[in-house]
Amino acid sequence: MTRDQKASVCVLGAGLIGGSLLRAAAAAGYEVFGYNRSAAGAQAARQDGFDVGADLPATLTRAAAADALIVIAVPMPAVDHILADIATFAPECALTDVVSVKAPVAAAVREHGLSARFVGGHPMTGTSESGWAATDSELFRGAVWAVGVDEGTHVEPWTRVVRLALDCGSVVVPVVAAEHDRAVARISHLPHVLAEALAVAGAAGGPLALGLAAGSFRDGTRVAATAPDLVRAICEPNAEALLAVLEETLTVLGAARDSLRAEGSLADLVTAGHDGRQDYDTAQRWEIRDIRPGDHNWLEQLRDAGLRGGVLTELRS
Amino acid sequence: MTRDQKASVCVLGAGLIGGSLLRAAAAAGYEVFGYNRSAAGAQAARQDGFDVGADLPATLTRAAAADALIVIAVPMPAVDHILADIATFAPECALTDVVSVKAPVAAAVREHGLSARFVGGHPMTGTSESGWAATDSELFRGAVWAVGVDEGTHVEPWTRVVRLALDCGSVVVPVVAAEHDRAVARISHLPHVLAEALAVAGAAGGPLALGLAAGSFRDGTRVAATAPDLVRAICEPNAEALLAVLEETLTVLGAARDSLRAEGSLADLVTAGHDGRQDYDTAQRWEIRDIRPGDHNWLEQLRDAGLRGGVLTELRS
Repeated sequence: MTRDQKASVCVLGAGLIGGSLLRAAAAAGYEVFGYNRSAAGAQAARQDGFDVGADLPATLTRAAAADALIVIAVPMPAVDHILADIATFAPECALTDVVSVKAPVAAAVREHGLSARFVGGHPMTGTSESGWAATDSELFRGAVWAVGVDEGTHVEPWTRVVRLALDCGSVVVPVVAAEHDRAVARISHLPHVLAEALAVAGAAGGPLALGLAAGSFRDGTRVAATAPDLVRAICEPNAEALLAVLEETLTVLGAARDSLRAEGSLADLVTAGHDGRQDYDTAQRWEIRDIRPGDHNWLEQLRDAGLRGGVLTELRS
Repeated sequence: MTRDQKASVCVLGAGLIGGSLLRAAAAAGYEVFGYNRSAAGAQAARQDGFDVGADLPATLTRAAAADALIVIAVPMPAVDHILADIATFAPECALTDVVSVKAPVAAAVREHGLSARFVGGHPMTGTSESGWAATDSELFRGAVWAVGVDEGTHVEPWTRVVRLALDCGSVVVPVVAAEHDRAVARISHLPHVLAEALAVAGAAGGPLALGLAAGSFRDGTRVAATAPDLVRAICEPNAEALLAVLEETLTVLGAARDSLRAEGSLADLVTAGHDGRQDYDTAQRWEIRDIRPGDHNWLEQLRDAGLRGGVLTELRS
């Protein structure tokens, strides 16, 4: 192990994801410290024994001194402000994020001149809870953690980010920013939109409808319990990809409506939906084994493997 | 206890709901027997010690002799055929059903001249599994069981149906057929439609999207794993009510699309959806205490109480 293999990790934002990462990284043996905008949140973390302050320049100065891997764990609307301070106080640190969209983060990173040390990330996990109180060191175990393989990615920060994800118990899906954003529009942001619409339809039925509601409504609206600001911060920055898949879905639902009205049949929708869920239930992850970071064309090869369902479960060097 | 308080129960159809009812009613002390169209299903039930045959006239003749409460537990498309035999072999038996829509069943019952002994029912429970192998005597425990209070309902069959539901561990929501069907379009049939559409959208993203999918996609598509024929048999007979709420939802989603495109905002949808889910999470069932079957206006009073979130948890006489 070289010095940087388990170097320090500095987590900016101690909400559900950032706070859980503080816990998971500490449990995995990293030296870990962080920052939280609200002093109350920082204090809650400190009361549980985590080294979290509310002074961003001070935290970043310390990160620079420790050559820490910095993890941006704030919602998209707060990213730009954080990057400005990173560019000032810790411009040489390896940098990643756990934000729900990747292209807007990459663009902001570029604007602040920090691309050379940056690798985007996105652990695909969460609950409808938020804040320090909901944090869990096991949140990432068994989860999928998307890690960027965009053109120009450097080996050393990439390796540190992948190692952190693996050490937290996740498997890594290599993906470029635009493809990530289109994929999560389908499997994360559209589910939020449909859950909200379903909750609206159910509540419009009053106490009778809500009283009769069982598993299908409960599960179908679960993520509508998420704080509205958080849902907006997750979905709105991915507007372009979300609009495309929402349009697709309006077309699918409109066709189902027409078929139900004209022929009393939902056959096409139900058959296609069942096939889709079968694809999901039977999807096989396979392990990417033969691509080493730094190999010729390693980024393109990893991107291609990720598109075909490949995951990394260990780092080879 | 009079003789009919725990008389025989005859269940027609030994799938998930009917089979679970055989188990639950037996566990509650009823003499219970039944019929299943497929001989293989009937045999599976017999192997587990349940008295289930594949000869409908014979089963109904026995039901008539035992003055059994007959429970129709087949999908809507098979109801008419079953009713024809009931009218022939057991026209005097108290009759209920566990079918997912109520107005179409009531219309078919009327057509066969069986209304006087009929009370519609619908336990709001199930899984994405089906068939005898999925049956569970505890399926109804803690569930809501809709029981008809339509005009012309008679006290004695109504009391027997309510008692069966309570004995299986459910609470009873009194509701008339048309209001039931509009409510379940919102909280059961629309969830199916949206789950199918979400599964279609996710699968269109290929292995990458399905590989990144986490809780929101898994929960949002859970009911799309249900057998397509069963989903169609549940939703299509309620086409009128489902079309109305699907149209509403297309309008809500279209407005969200327009707002996201024009202003980058999902605020209206997300706020309304969160409020709707809050309504669901905070909905309080209250116990209907002061209405006795047979009282003046008992049906209207029960209907009104059900609309306001009231449930029956015991039978008073």
